[in-house]
Formats: sequence, structure tokens, C-alpha cells
Amino acid sequence: MTERIVNFGPGPAAIPLPVLEKVKDELLSYRGSGMSVLEISHRSKWFDEIIQTAVARLKRLMGLGDDFQVLFIQGGASMQFAMVPLNLCGGKRPAYINTGTWSTKAIAEAEIQGTRPLVVASSEDRNFAYIPRDYQVPAEAAYLHLTSNNTIKGTQFKTFPQAPVPLVADMSSDILSRPFDPAPFGFIYAGAQKNLGPAGVVVAVIRKDMLSRTPDNLPTMLRYTTYAAKNSLYNTPPCFTIYIIGLVLEWLEEEMGGLEKVEAQNQAKAKLLYQALDDSGGFYRPTADKDSRSLMNVTFRLADEDLEAGFVAQALENGLGGLKGHKSVGGCRASIYNALSLEEVKALVEFMTEFARRKG
Amino acid sequence: MTERIVNFGPGPAAIPLPVLEKVKDELLSYRGSGMSVLEISHRSKWFDEIIQTAVARLKRLMGLGDDFQVLFIQGGASMQFAMVPLNLCGGKRPAYINTGTWSTKAIAEAEIQGTRPLVVASSEDRNFAYIPRDYQVPAEAAYLHLTSNNTIKGTQFKTFPQAPVPLVADMSSDILSRPFDPAPFGFIYAGAQKNLGPAGVVVAVIRKDMLSRTPDNLPTMLRYTTYAAKNSLYNTPPCFTIYIIGLVLEWLEEEMGGLEKVEAQNQAKAKLLYQALDDSGGFYRPTADKDSRSLMNVTFRLADEDLEAGFVAQALENGLGGLKGHKSVGGCRASIYNALSLEEVKALVEFMTEFARRKG
Repeated sequence: MTERIVNFGPGPAAIPLPVLEKVKDELLSYRGSGMSVLEISHRSKWFDEIIQTAVARLKRLMGLGDDFQVLFIQGGASMQFAMVPLNLCGGKRPAYINTGTWSTKAIAEAEIQGTRPLVVASSEDRNFAYIPRDYQVPAEAAYLHLTSNNTIKGTQFKTFPQAPVPLVADMSSDILSRPFDPAPFGFIYAGAQKNLGPAGVVVAVIRKDMLSRTPDNLPTMLRYTTYAAKNSLYNTPPCFTIYIIGLVLEWLEEEMGGLEKVEAQNQAKAKLLYQALDDSGGFYRPTADKDSRSLMNVTFRLADEDLEAGFVAQALENGLGGLKGHKSVGGCRASIYNALSLEEVKALVEFMTEFARRKG
Repeated sequence: MTERIVNFGPGPAAIPLPVLEKVKDELLSYRGSGMSVLEISHRSKWFDEIIQTAVARLKRLMGLGDDFQVLFIQGGASMQFAMVPLNLCGGKRPAYINTGTWSTKAIAEAEIQGTRPLVVASSEDRNFAYIPRDYQVPAEAAYLHLTSNNTIKGTQFKTFPQAPVPLVADMSSDILSRPFDPAPFGFIYAGAQKNLGPAGVVVAVIRKDMLSRTPDNLPTMLRYTTYAAKNSLYNTPPCFTIYIIGLVLEWLEEEMGGLEKVEAQNQAKAKLLYQALDDSGGFYRPTADKDSRSLMNVTFRLADEDLEAGFVAQALENGLGGLKGHKSVGGCRASIYNALSLEEVKALVEFMTEFARRKG
């Protein structure tokens, strides 16, 4: 009944098994409270400790100083596509880099607000198969927005742009997958359901000076200042989701040993998988440019759609799930977020090699 | 380790134990999927069945016809305070009944949008201790908004107003506690964390003709039409929260036997508790007017704050938790949502009688 598959799904995605086991253990009564975390008050000492510990762990893991604040906001990254320009434009035009579906949606929301976003770079010319280089960002822009990793096309920024304005990043699909310098960032947001926990909350990091940009006439729940002033407890937050995020952060810090080690494992996993694609003699065809390949989402095609469907189905029979590509592009995709181990990726590579031998 | 208290907390609140036990059983692998519900894709057949079954159960329980649609929206009732006037005004001024904190916040958000809300009735004159009667609602108003139950003051609408415009109701704290005719309602919303499940989603019901009021220039995630067009799957919803709501709805329908029986139990529980207050010779002092008393939140004072603190602390020692009143008003409060049984309320009454005997 508790037999589990290896979950290569793009999100909602695999959660570390030790985290799930702890959630199960504590489900009926949380640490002497006599209540489930699903039932405890967001004003209780138990939840206070949960959220404060999660914030402290996130700040340690990401190396965030006191000039940054962590916020928990509902509505997904899609809500942030609107909240970012509503809060952070300060009367200026924002700049965007377009690397595919999610950037395109973020730009569309900035247009709805009438902020007239400037698209300073785009990889649309080659179907978003790469991360753009060589572009100018006007110093008078409000911010430069980028999507750090594209789950659909399997591309990822290796380094972040130098820009004369604060960076704003949607890191939904690669947050906490590697260390980076937070100093150039004014705002970072990430839907939890890939590297952080289950769906239902966005973890955001704001540089405190950015808070002065929020206009007073926004609805209360759309203002970053509301979340900052009340430590994300203006109203009832999604307590259980935040609790699980806290356990994932604990696992990252105490079991995995921090982001340097996490990145090393992610590099090793991706190297193994891309090597298998490159060595397959064209049986598996990677879709992203080599220098833009994502460490999180490895996208590839097979010779035709029937073969791809057979690959996905037979993989699942072998306990390897979630390998179908996004419906907008087809093909195959292995999402190898933090929760996936090197051994699990090895199992996929072994299956792929065997499948290619039989069908090639 | 799994010893549980009786949870009289106002929300997040008690969840039926059979629901929690099922969640625990299925936590590591959901019905043959090999994944936790925390990990499954919102586009998977498993989640599709979860959300469709939940919607069908809610419609059956509430007696909603095909002219109504069920939506799941993040951000809590506080986000709805803004989304309601943004979506449903259609260029007209909205009307509000003010019965306390939550209505007051809803009115404030309508003011932020510049919709110039008309407050047609208020019980502020006597500290919101009653539900107003005898007021006029202009036929040219966009809608009439009310808070069906006030968790802080312990008041509740017994019947809903007759009005020449669609009713809009925040039913966060009494949804599914009793049957009612949905016909006069254009929009109903409820944060899940009282009668529906854990915190992290609002369950909303919209009469489909109301959808034509939504302006096109709202951010995508603030438009009710976005949720209606995609059955709440425009982006990743809070899957696990919706799953638990589905289990609570199953429990309401199959274990409790529907809303008539739920209401009868709620009436019996409230009668027992109010009787104990009224019969205490002034030791316990109910705060709401008799004809406005809530069946969900029973609010009362003791002679002084020390005695109240002693009552709350000793109750907890006896396994009866969450009895402290809201911080804005003090005193005591027993929240007796659907998940609380008659036996659990009897246990509270017994404790109260004994406490009054010792201290009275």
C-alpha cells in the first residue's frame, strides 16, 4: 500500500521521504499539542515556532542578511506576475527578459497594469531553447525581471545578469538548488511545489528598501507591506503548507548539509542524465542549447510521438513516473529537483539505456 | 503521542478524526499512485477525481443547481474582501451590512477600490452584539454583502435578508452548518479553516450570471472568470487542502447524513451550551443578544479577567482547548463547528458546571 514510485514530475513534485514520514508521524497530534498541524491556530505558540524556524532556516540557507525579509503569500507565482508590477514599479517602466511561457505570462500581467513593460531580451526567435545574452537594461527601469529556470523548455540561467536596477526573479523551479549572491536581487519569489514543499504558497524574499515602492491604494492582500508588517500573519496563512516547507528546509540544512552540497548533487544528477542523452546516438534528443541546459528539468524528444508515449508508459511500469513533457511542447521531461537522489537518476538512466537498446 | 484534546478553537479548527486518520493512512501513497497527495500533479487523473468529487459533493450538500459554479481561490476571505467589489460592482455602488470586524474589513476594501460602499445597516451602536433588522437596500446597489456569522462577537444571521439585489455572503465560519435556499445569493465565499478543512483555500460559489460583471482589465488571478473558465485549475491549486476538504465533505454526506442532520446536531450542541450559560446564575455571562446568538461561536465573560484566564487554563488541563476569546474583545469563546460532537460539548458543559461550583 505504501509502495512508492520515483517521481520525476515537474510540480507538484517529489517531497523527501523522511519529510513525509515525519508528517505522517505527527499527523494526529503535533508535539504534545493534542492537535494536528492541520488544526492548530496560526496564533499558537506551535505555529509561531514553525514559521519563525522556517524563516530562519531559509535565511541561513540562502545567506540572506537583515536587509531581506521572507514573506509567505498565497495565489502561486501567477499571482506574483501581477503583484510584482503592482508593488514594485514606483511609477517607472519595468524591464523583462522573456525565456518562455512563464516570463511571457509575467509580461502580460505587467501589461494589464498599464506599466508598459520593456522586453530587453527574448529567446523566442528559437522557440526559447536558450537563455539570451548581450542586452542592455536601461538605468531608468523599475527592475529587471527574469525566470531563473524554465520548466517547460528545460533552460536555466547559469549566472544572473549584471544590471543597473534591482533584479526580480521567479525562482519557482530552482530555488534552493544552488547558492548564489542575493545582493543584486530586490525581490525573489517561488511557488513551493517544486523544491520547497506542496502547492499552496509562494515563498518570497524582499529587500526591505523595495517595500517603500508599494502604493497605498492597493488592496490590502496585494501589498507586500501587509505581509512584511505582520510577518505573513495579517490573516490566516496556509499553516500546514508552511509546516511542510519548514521540514523540507530542515532536511536541506541538516540531512543534505546546505546548498553547496545540494548543488554538487544536482550537478552530478544532471551530468549523468545529459550524458546519457548525448551518448544515445540520437535516440534521445535534448531540446535545450547545451550552454543553457537546466539542472532541474531535462527535456528531450524521441524519434516520434508513439515512441515517446511508449517510453513514458514503460518507465512508469518500471516505477519511474512523471516523465511526460509539458502539454504545450510534447516530448519527454525528467524533473530532478532536490528531492531526487543520484541513485534515482541512475535508475532512470539504466532504464533509458535499456529502452534505447530494445527500440533503437 | 497521539493523545488528542477537544479543540474548541475558532479557526484553524478541529477536523473530524476519521478524516485525519484517512489522511494519515494515505499519506505516503495515494490509492495506488505511488505518490503522496502532497506530490501528485494537479493535472493527474487522481487530482482530477479529487476536485470533481469535492465539487459534486458540495453542490449536493448545498442544493446548488447548474446555475451555480464552485471555485477554489487562494488568499483567504481577506482576499475576497477585495475581489468581491473588484469583480461584482459592474459600475454600481455595493451595499453592506456591518456586523463587526470582518464586515468592517470587507467595507474598507470596497472603499480602497473607490466603489463607495453604502452601509445600509450596522450593529456598531451596541458593540456588534446583535444582527440588525429593518433596513432598506436600494434597488440600484450592485449587491448586498453580509457576514453570515461573526466569530468574534458570537452573532449569526438566523434568516437571510430579502433584498432587491443579489446577496453576497462571507460564510467562512458557518458554511455547511445548516441548509438554506441559495437562490437569492449571487456569490458566497468561505475560508476553509473552520467548517471545511485546513487553512489555505477559499471555497466560493458563484451564480453564473454574475460572471458577466468581471472587468477585463483585472489581473488574471483576481478575476472570478479565470477560476470559472478553468475549473479552478488555471494555475496549480492548493491540491492537498482541496483533498482534505473533499474528505470533510464525504464525512458530512456519508457519516453525518447531510445538512439537515448536521443542523440538528448543531442546534442541540448550542442549546446545551447556552442553557449552561443562562442557568449559571450570572457566573457565565453570554455577550450576544439572545435572538442573534451564533450556533458556531458561543461567547461569554466571567466576573473578571483573572477568573477567565483560570477557566481557560483549567479547561486545557482537562483536555478542553481553544477557549480563549478573540484578542480584540477578551473573554471566552467555545467554537463548536460541525466537527465537534454533542458528547464533546457535554464534556465542556460538565467542566463548566464543576468550575462554577468551585469558584462561584
